[in-house]
Amino acid sequence: MTKTIAILGASGYTGAELVRLISTHPDMKIAALTGERKAGQPMARVFPFLRHLDLPDLSRIEDVDFSGIDLAFCALPHATSQAVIKELPRDLKIVDLSADFRLRDVADYEKWYGQPHAAPDLQREAVYGLTEFYREEIRAARLVAGTGCNAATGQYILRPLIEAGVIDLDRIILDLKCGVSGAGRALKENLLHSELSEGTQAYAAGGTHRHLGEFDQEFSRIAGRPVHIQFTPHLLPMNRGILATAWLDGDAARLHEVLQARYCAESMIHVLPFGTTPSTHDVRGSNFVHIGVVGDRIPGRALVVAALDNLCKGSSGQAIQNANLMLGLQEEAGLMGAPLFP
Amino acid sequence: MTKTIAILGASGYTGAELVRLISTHPDMKIAALTGERKAGQPMARVFPFLRHLDLPDLSRIEDVDFSGIDLAFCALPHATSQAVIKELPRDLKIVDLSADFRLRDVADYEKWYGQPHAAPDLQREAVYGLTEFYREEIRAARLVAGTGCNAATGQYILRPLIEAGVIDLDRIILDLKCGVSGAGRALKENLLHSELSEGTQAYAAGGTHRHLGEFDQEFSRIAGRPVHIQFTPHLLPMNRGILATAWLDGDAARLHEVLQARYCAESMIHVLPFGTTPSTHDVRGSNFVHIGVVGDRIPGRALVVAALDNLCKGSSGQAIQNANLMLGLQEEAGLMGAPLFP
Amino acid sequence: MTKTIAILGASGYTGAELVRLISTHPDMKIAALTGERKAGQPMARVFPFLRHLDLPDLSRIEDVDFSGIDLAFCALPHATSQAVIKELPRDLKIVDLSADFRLRDVADYEKWYGQPHAAPDLQREAVYGLTEFYREEIRAARLVAGTGCNAATGQYILRPLIEAGVIDLDRIILDLKCGVSGAGRALKENLLHSELSEGTQAYAAGGTHRHLGEFDQEFSRIAGRPVHIQFTPHLLPMNRGILATAWLDGDAARLHEVLQARYCAESMIHVLPFGTTPSTHDVRGSNFVHIGVVGDRIPGRALVVAALDNLCKGSSGQAIQNANLMLGLQEEAGLMGAPLFP
Amino acid sequence: MTKTIAILGASGYTGAELVRLISTHPDMKIAALTGERKAGQPMARVFPFLRHLDLPDLSRIEDVDFSGIDLAFCALPHATSQAVIKELPRDLKIVDLSADFRLRDVADYEKWYGQPHAAPDLQREAVYGLTEFYREEIRAARLVAGTGCNAATGQYILRPLIEAGVIDLDRIILDLKCGVSGAGRALKENLLHSELSEGTQAYAAGGTHRHLGEFDQEFSRIAGRPVHIQFTPHLLPMNRGILATAWLDGDAARLHEVLQARYCAESMIHVLPFGTTPSTHDVRGSNFVHIGVVGDRIPGRALVVAALDNLCKGSSGQAIQNANLMLGLQEEAGLMGAPLFP
Repeated sequence: MTKTIAILGASGYTGAELVRLISTHPDMKIAALTGERKAGQPMARVFPFLRHLDLPDLSRIEDVDFSGIDLAFCALPHATSQAVIKELPRDLKIVDLSADFRLRDVADYEKWYGQPHAAPDLQREAVYGLTEFYREEIRAARLVAGTGCNAATGQYILRPLIEAGVIDLDRIILDLKCGVSGAGRALKENLLHSELSEGTQAYAAGGTHRHLGEFDQEFSRIAGRPVHIQFTPHLLPMNRGILATAWLDGDAARLHEVLQARYCAESMIHVLPFGTTPSTHDVRGSNFVHIGVVGDRIPGRALVVAALDNLCKGSSGQAIQNANLMLGLQEEAGLMGAPLFP
Repeated sequence: MTKTIAILGASGYTGAELVRLISTHPDMKIAALTGERKAGQPMARVFPFLRHLDLPDLSRIEDVDFSGIDLAFCALPHATSQAVIKELPRDLKIVDLSADFRLRDVADYEKWYGQPHAAPDLQREAVYGLTEFYREEIRAARLVAGTGCNAATGQYILRPLIEAGVIDLDRIILDLKCGVSGAGRALKENLLHSELSEGTQAYAAGGTHRHLGEFDQEFSRIAGRPVHIQFTPHLLPMNRGILATAWLDGDAARLHEVLQARYCAESMIHVLPFGTTPSTHDVRGSNFVHIGVVGDRIPGRALVVAALDNLCKGSSGQAIQNANLMLGLQEEAGLMGAPLFP
Repeated sequence: MTKTIAILGASGYTGAELVRLISTHPDMKIAALTGERKAGQPMARVFPFLRHLDLPDLSRIEDVDFSGIDLAFCALPHATSQAVIKELPRDLKIVDLSADFRLRDVADYEKWYGQPHAAPDLQREAVYGLTEFYREEIRAARLVAGTGCNAATGQYILRPLIEAGVIDLDRIILDLKCGVSGAGRALKENLLHSELSEGTQAYAAGGTHRHLGEFDQEFSRIAGRPVHIQFTPHLLPMNRGILATAWLDGDAARLHEVLQARYCAESMIHVLPFGTTPSTHDVRGSNFVHIGVVGDRIPGRALVVAALDNLCKGSSGQAIQNANLMLGLQEEAGLMGAPLFP
Repeated sequence: MTKTIAILGASGYTGAELVRLISTHPDMKIAALTGERKAGQPMARVFPFLRHLDLPDLSRIEDVDFSGIDLAFCALPHATSQAVIKELPRDLKIVDLSADFRLRDVADYEKWYGQPHAAPDLQREAVYGLTEFYREEIRAARLVAGTGCNAATGQYILRPLIEAGVIDLDRIILDLKCGVSGAGRALKENLLHSELSEGTQAYAAGGTHRHLGEFDQEFSRIAGRPVHIQFTPHLLPMNRGILATAWLDGDAARLHEVLQARYCAESMIHVLPFGTTPSTHDVRGSNFVHIGVVGDRIPGRALVVAALDNLCKGSSGQAIQNANLMLGLQEEAGLMGAPLFP
């Protein structure tokens, strides 16, 4: 009972990652791929690494016949996504990978994204796509909003700890390190190899990164009070991977216990033995999350570090995990491939 | 009808790559993993990227019960391999990834490897594991010798051209560029990140690389006369990937024709449109080979460029492809995963 | 009035960096280079990038005639350094780049380095080599202990702020990112290109890194009370560079003011405009430090980020800066080369 | 007697490299920097790595007062350069780093660059800037055309060999590997870190690269007959560096002899001991060239490999070397800085 899939915006990295993952998915088949500027081109020209696959050429969205489509992944740029999705059939299942439907509150959206939302009713309808925490809602959803990749990493660390009440909510620091593919295939000077390789720097420093909107929304909801974390990401000379280092006030052993209890039944999330920390090398190309907890030399202070692949578990892999639930497939289907090392 | 697999020498990169590939293979199950120096350790400690798998701990070879093993992959160092294999049960199917059984001739082995072979009878028995060219022999073989990764890349370009008689056999130049994982996990100064990143150099220059033994053996056999190519590899600051640039005397269009005809039925080998060249980016982590042909501005001279992943198609992927044949499984089983890009 | 220099331990990265910098120093000339295991070899073989220089061959320490030497740089491994230095002439000026003389307290040394000090009298004599803060002592010193590279970076951020009393001393978090050359030319698995490139991880997490000994010693002295910071470094896929992100409780604008006032007369240390953060790309290969201050969205919380080159300003450049002072030369001599970008 | 310098087009990599080198040049001072799109900005904003220098802001070319300028470096894009230079004062000394004045023949220019030359009289006037081979002409020149970086590398290998008549002129193959900064700071998809790191590919394959125009012009002139080499470059995941591997018909020992004899008096060009090959790591950031010669296992065939830094010796360093000659300064002034390793 293979499901028929469309990918809107297949000429970017998250679109290509969807194709990569679906190519070995036992129950999905790609029926349409869109890319406005590259419409008419075969995928093998846009992404030669997909040459071995028998794929439809890129087309325009308006040329897709959605009647036979079971689910559409929407990998379009922010803002474009909402404009496109509001014109799609209202009974089409959709997983959106943009930022457009992550925030539930109309004012929050405008605050973080600088413009009013074009489809507030859909915004209300959308389910937040952090699979392990919204599983039942996602199963029943028509429209799921993929989370930010940084936002996902931080939440895998912090949600269980906030919920269990084992950390000081006014002292949450998230120092994040991320690879460059998270910025997409855009032509920006700071994404050039010459500018990026062999060095590092912070960006969106001091609490200006948009993923804070997601953190605020989710953590405040869990805590039942406003929670504002400190969060600054750093750009690293690597293509894939996010390493999030959380500096927390709490008892490290207790934190480890809480995380282990929360994730012991999750196939994608692995809590490492106490005192050890993860590496992005060990999750590259996979849908797995590795989390480690270490006590600081100062009693009552702890470090929790999480690693995931921003394009996979942080974006396209998560999207497929959600789609699996929405389509009644096995949640892990197509997602258990091992990381690529070295 | 799942086949039971042992991997001898699982603590190196080719061993780990075998585990990675087998982890999603529909018909293979790993029953034993060995690593002499790390015996007793769980694989998750030696290779944390394999943490999600339920694997046997590393053991010593002498502790493996081979009675229930359908096939053993031998990913041991050169010279060690022959010593180990000659003590294994004579009815055990084996795919060896070392250099020990690649050369058929006892004298050739001694010439290129500097010592007499310890198991000349097995050397005679072994089938050369370049799947697409020894398919029937491999199907019937008990012991298959995996090819050198550089040797495989060069042969995918040159075998059909030599066989078709379309190039000058005395003018074959192979300028090869390879990633560092081909050198394994050995602790050598020149493999350190500080020594390697952001620069390049030739090595084994001028016809001293051991894979020339394989080229000489195979090309002379096909041509029915001695063929000695010029071959120098270069070490590049990347982990995976081989790009081989062959500078040939011959008509480029004719060369393209010959390669296309030879590979059109092969699922793993893709000949690009005439005039285009491949990138190692597009085969990373996969079992695919991309080959491109370009005519030089000098009439009668051509460039043929091939790209593959040294650890996968150049080594462990090829080994599994051969094992599939030896075990009566579908040749592509477990090997059609898409490359990882970016 | 050129000064005559010996470099003990010239076969490692800090030794080579000393040679690189001295090669264009107007007032220094290298008279002896030692390297026990590589004694007898020309430097051009050990470090081909120094081929253009007319340098003495590597020798053993015992073969150096120190009578004509004005100053010796000691770039030997930790523990070896103290054993060697205590045998050197007591009137020889020495800049030691190891960790052996950084801690003043015998018990502190034993705590962080796990063994008693072999030359406690020299330990007492040594001046801590953070040039901008010990300038007068260094000028008068015979033996100067180069600081840890991580320790230097953190101190450039924190010393002025602690001294000015503008941050909460019980809430100092230093999340540091560093390149691999800081680990030296040692043959360790985790330093291989295959293990390191394209990924990141924490190490010595939770307050176990030895440079904490320096932080504790210095910060407690400045504050006049015990100060224990939280500090965890992360290893990045780059050869040179340290980026230190300090998460602090304090008013960002005030912090910026204090740092600007402290460093406005320093030629090597540049405080960026408020609200901007530095990149290691911009200091690579140079003796400069860039420091940026950003306010967090939470009032009263600030981020201070510093970037320097671990081999240069963090080690060998600092050593030459100190030697310049000890020899009565201009402090900046040989150290004003621009960074290498890209 | 400091010379006053203008740099036109200072917002690109070669412009920045000129500033870097001149910052420690004993006899040059920068009086003007132009950048049309970034006019009015301080260099520290365009290139923060130059923050420590006291530099003029970027201006428009039309706003530069050339009356006090001793020499202008022109680091503008191809085609723009000729349009700008023909409007500059006719007595201003100029070193042009673009491709505009490299070819002497009007028809050749049009063939390789696809459009007629806008300043054919200046094209005739310009001296080809390969310093070691046009030293006297450059000393007397008003307008010098910097060579292509690939073209320089190939010529350092081939000029002496062609002149000495020791290689087969109809069998010259140049397989070149180059870093990405050679492509400049342009916003092109294939220059993104995500597209480039961890892989390699050929480009301009089969004799279509424009630097062939230079090779043809120079080699034919030396040989006194048409010489057409085969040349294909490959793009490597590194920022700086060119490694050129020449596959030649000739006696390797004789080739080595010829090269040694030709370069023994050159301070910038180092011929390695016979049988060894260079690495781009060893020349990064410097004005040095390393050349190695190896005999192939096939008698009468040889490999000559050369390494240089494309931005320095291949472009801006060479430009300064030429300017030194034109201004009556010491040729090596400002150019003897050691490479940066690691």
